Amino acid sequence: MGSPFIQVGGGVTAPRGFLAASCYCGIKEGNLDKPDIALIYSSSPAVAAATFTTNRVKAAPVKVSAAHLRSPEIRAIIANSGNANACTGLGGIEHAKRMAQAAAAALGLKRNQVLVGSTGRIGIPLPIAKMEEAIKELPKALRDDGSLKAARAIMTTDTFPKEIAVELPLGGETVRLGGIAKGAGMIDPNMATMLCFLTTDAAVGKKDLAKALSVAVDQSFNRITIDGDMSTNDTAILLANGAAQSRPLDVSTRSFDLFQRALNYVTAGLARMIVEDGEGVSKFVEVHVKGAPTFQDARKAARAVARSTLVKCAWFGGDPNWGRIVDAIGYSSARIREEMVDVYYDGVIAVKNGMPSKTPVSKLRGVVANERFKITIDLQLGSAEYTVYTTDLTVKYVELNMGE
Amino acid sequence: MGSPFIQVGGGVTAPRGFLAASCYCGIKEGNLDKPDIALIYSSSPAVAAATFTTNRVKAAPVKVSAAHLRSPEIRAIIANSGNANACTGLGGIEHAKRMAQAAAAALGLKRNQVLVGSTGRIGIPLPIAKMEEAIKELPKALRDDGSLKAARAIMTTDTFPKEIAVELPLGGETVRLGGIAKGAGMIDPNMATMLCFLTTDAAVGKKDLAKALSVAVDQSFNRITIDGDMSTNDTAILLANGAAQSRPLDVSTRSFDLFQRALNYVTAGLARMIVEDGEGVSKFVEVHVKGAPTFQDARKAARAVARSTLVKCAWFGGDPNWGRIVDAIGYSSARIREEMVDVYYDGVIAVKNGMPSKTPVSKLRGVVANERFKITIDLQLGSAEYTVYTTDLTVKYVELNMGE
Repeated sequence: MGSPFIQVGGGVTAPRGFLAASCYCGIKEGNLDKPDIALIYSSSPAVAAATFTTNRVKAAPVKVSAAHLRSPEIRAIIANSGNANACTGLGGIEHAKRMAQAAAAALGLKRNQVLVGSTGRIGIPLPIAKMEEAIKELPKALRDDGSLKAARAIMTTDTFPKEIAVELPLGGETVRLGGIAKGAGMIDPNMATMLCFLTTDAAVGKKDLAKALSVAVDQSFNRITIDGDMSTNDTAILLANGAAQSRPLDVSTRSFDLFQRALNYVTAGLARMIVEDGEGVSKFVEVHVKGAPTFQDARKAARAVARSTLVKCAWFGGDPNWGRIVDAIGYSSARIREEMVDVYYDGVIAVKNGMPSKTPVSKLRGVVANERFKITIDLQLGSAEYTVYTTDLTVKYVELNMGE
Repeated sequence: MGSPFIQVGGGVTAPRGFLAASCYCGIKEGNLDKPDIALIYSSSPAVAAATFTTNRVKAAPVKVSAAHLRSPEIRAIIANSGNANACTGLGGIEHAKRMAQAAAAALGLKRNQVLVGSTGRIGIPLPIAKMEEAIKELPKALRDDGSLKAARAIMTTDTFPKEIAVELPLGGETVRLGGIAKGAGMIDPNMATMLCFLTTDAAVGKKDLAKALSVAVDQSFNRITIDGDMSTNDTAILLANGAAQSRPLDVSTRSFDLFQRALNYVTAGLARMIVEDGEGVSKFVEVHVKGAPTFQDARKAARAVARSTLVKCAWFGGDPNWGRIVDAIGYSSARIREEMVDVYYDGVIAVKNGMPSKTPVSKLRGVVANERFKITIDLQLGSAEYTVYTTDLTVKYVELNMGE
């Protein structure tokens, strides 16, 4: 079969017509090695879609971007790290608008053609004056290979920049899809802000673009950042500028399916990088629940296991401890029957029909000793399934999070 | 005003007619210093009430006790530590019945007059033969001051035995209420088994007793062990033998209110000891949400804060980090309005109307440096409130839970 799309370099600037830049204006304490403002620009009008945090406490940039999203055309994203502009009241809203305005003025756009993102400390006013000064000069730095610079500028405690892009044949043309993201913090069950900026040179209508992004986010970032566990700033934006000159995508066609698959691939790739870069993480674990009576049951069971501090501590220690997994499934509120539950570690059976299998513990320990492994839980009650990507809970995680 | 009841010694054997004993039969690896079987006996017929885990995976002793609870009279509780008799299939049920039968035979009772509790490792068959041998001799060790011995015999990773008793005037007599409990593990959000055995020499009808226990558990153990986060073995049993010769309590009277208050006091006391003895805990924190539109909203908000690993890590590090608290409230699904939220640390305001107060961080640090403090969250939307007792998340907790 083979994938119909191939991975390419260039991240958020891989699609035609997109440029990116970054600069340092001193939001974070530290030195010039830590850029703190990123700009992404489309040289032609773009259609935009976005998903924002479900947290009831929404940061100012989220509110402003949600309003600007109503514009028919979006041309740029301006984002900063080091300060989340959250819990900052009406002053924060004003600052988010000024960020957008500064970028718009520098680029010759209207304010509502610019979306805004912020990540970092909460409750502190943005140093808006110096940001405005820096943003004024930023367009000069825009490059068609600026993705990595932008990816670095939105990092907080991330240890590596996250970017990815793919190329696919679509409507008789070669279309590209790319993105950058930042995460860090232990993603589940945490509040580390997730920012993701995606671009494509495909031509897609606004409604279809929103639908595609929603599907992609649900099978990527929502698999690592549990609904309702989102930070005050979580934002995923997708800009489509049609610069590839492909025919506009129709949601009912096979081409759209292919576009959706490519978008899913890009978002899942970024989500995986975010988990792998979790603060103090030493293991990457896939929790796959199958045989559930419904999708909801599968999701509840998978999330309970992926969120259990005791399960995660056991993984850190290389202890299979399937009892904690069965316990988590039991309290998850998923419909299960204890005597039907099977649990596998990388395909090795640990629990058969709710009771310990004959597998020697040493064999299970061998699996959990790995940096990556998969827990499969078969509820044997139906055909619904769900997968969550998670990590262990380490001493380093606690140490990293015990200070501000 | 003064409390109408006074605290007395004697724990579960403080009420008249109750005796307790313990022995060692070698369930736990280790030495004779670690008793592993406890027996509580009422010398006259007692009425029983119990609440069991809401986990869908229920250990064998829970299933057997739930069935025995239908007996009109209960005379004894037999419990062991070191082995939870959970995930043990039909063989486990048989073993739980044999535990009850062994105690019944030794005491001259019917099997269904004995309730059963187990705590410890999951998925391993009980060493039932040697337990039966030990239980045979256990009645000889029954003492009317045996509470502490029984409390020690149900300990797993607990660092101290937990017992409490009160005395109160009721129906013209002096009535006593006492209990023992075991917890350990970080109680929230964990699966450490909670066992609690309560006795009273008041005369209470079965239905009223069940109601009183349910109310007491809801304001004590359910405040530390979140519903649906219970272990496979959690059990609270209350036996009332009427030995104080007081008039039977009528649920509609002021006497019943007093009994309820005393029972609430006893269960809350035991619940607090369980939190204080949490594995690797260094701080004890009360999270009080008020001003919520409904009880459900208050509970959701309080639990989200009490369960947040980031909030708990910050407490461990002595970092006030109110941003993480506001974030947790935001994703809790409680109805809130960001611009109305106030947060206090031991009465010192940290957040006013969703924004940082003018309180110097050093002052908030001073509060969080304490071993005990209270977080008050005023949502300013209504009059409902809820309190949860929780702890910090420490490096020691992770270290303790990374092995089996």
